[in-house]
Amino acid sequence: MQTAAGTSPAPATPGTRDRIVTTAARLIQRQGYVGTGIKQIAQEARATLGSVYHFFPGGKEAVAVEALRHSGEEFAGLLRDTLAGEDDAADAVEACAVRLATELRASGWVDGCPVTAAALETLGTDTGIQRACADALRGWEALVAGKLLACGFAADDARELATTVIGALEGAEVTAQVTRSEEPLRVTGRHLARLLRSYT
Amino acid sequence: MQTAAGTSPAPATPGTRDRIVTTAARLIQRQGYVGTGIKQIAQEARATLGSVYHFFPGGKEAVAVEALRHSGEEFAGLLRDTLAGEDDAADAVEACAVRLATELRASGWVDGCPVTAAALETLGTDTGIQRACADALRGWEALVAGKLLACGFAADDARELATTVIGALEGAEVTAQVTRSEEPLRVTGRHLARLLRSYT
Repeated sequence: MQTAAGTSPAPATPGTRDRIVTTAARLIQRQGYVGTGIKQIAQEARATLGSVYHFFPGGKEAVAVEALRHSGEEFAGLLRDTLAGEDDAADAVEACAVRLATELRASGWVDGCPVTAAALETLGTDTGIQRACADALRGWEALVAGKLLACGFAADDARELATTVIGALEGAEVTAQVTRSEEPLRVTGRHLARLLRSYT
Repeated sequence: MQTAAGTSPAPATPGTRDRIVTTAARLIQRQGYVGTGIKQIAQEARATLGSVYHFFPGGKEAVAVEALRHSGEEFAGLLRDTLAGEDDAADAVEACAVRLATELRASGWVDGCPVTAAALETLGTDTGIQRACADALRGWEALVAGKLLACGFAADDARELATTVIGALEGAEVTAQVTRSEEPLRVTGRHLARLLRSYT
């Protein structure tokens, strides 16, 4: 419950903090970091501005860093889950592309990569935003590399292929969003599978 | 020359219009569309706000659409030039990745894909911005497909591979920017070359 005054920090519960983070994550994913205001975050999270600053004294940037971490972990969960669903590395990577395509369409093409826009908007700045985006990308690459290692790829190949896989999926997602079509992701998934099979 | 008054539309020359477009293009590339204000565009283009509206009565969105077209054509020029420099399709695509890596580093990691941020910030809107971004991507894909066709690839393969190549280069560029390293682009270039060679 919010205080009647509304301006003093609300006796915010942990649930409020979670709502602020997940709301910010969704807004940043859909409209970027720059266009997402702290007032909009508070409003859509049904929190007072006071309670946002209570949990995040650093304001918008602090909320965004936590939101990007949350999104990064959420996307990691999707990757981990999908990669584990196929024994073969090539099949597993293609399944990730297909799942991204299906979920992207289901969201009306708006829920793409949760960090790309924020990363590009804050380039050249040494902020927690850039570090959170870099950490997310590295975490996703590590998941793909782990799957390839487990499937018998050499360590260097696994690491380099993981970089290409994550980058290609990111780029294909942007193309899919802009052209409102699953095709770029599905085609890229098939080509990544073909690339992986060329190693075996 | 601008009028002394400064508020009435300046007797703006064609050079002024070009400066507005190229300035907007660079700003959108480096900080996105949302964070780029029309006042900043005018200021950095050494134009009055009046002359910006003289050339672009539609305001910021109209300037941005023209800026994205300009950026799209500039990037197409880089691709056309680099693809033409190698006879072999795989070598040509890898050369594109290497050139992007070199130029990205030279820009201090800020001059990446000129349309990605703007595209992601305006998702779900039916604006000229989205159309300009989609047109740019399609134009780049057509250049790669044309090279592959000229190198003897089947039409369907050429078209699909071009989608993967442009998406993978886009994604690798974002990773390179965030991690401030040429490696993602160079690695992706090698893998795309390997993928193309698997067709011959």
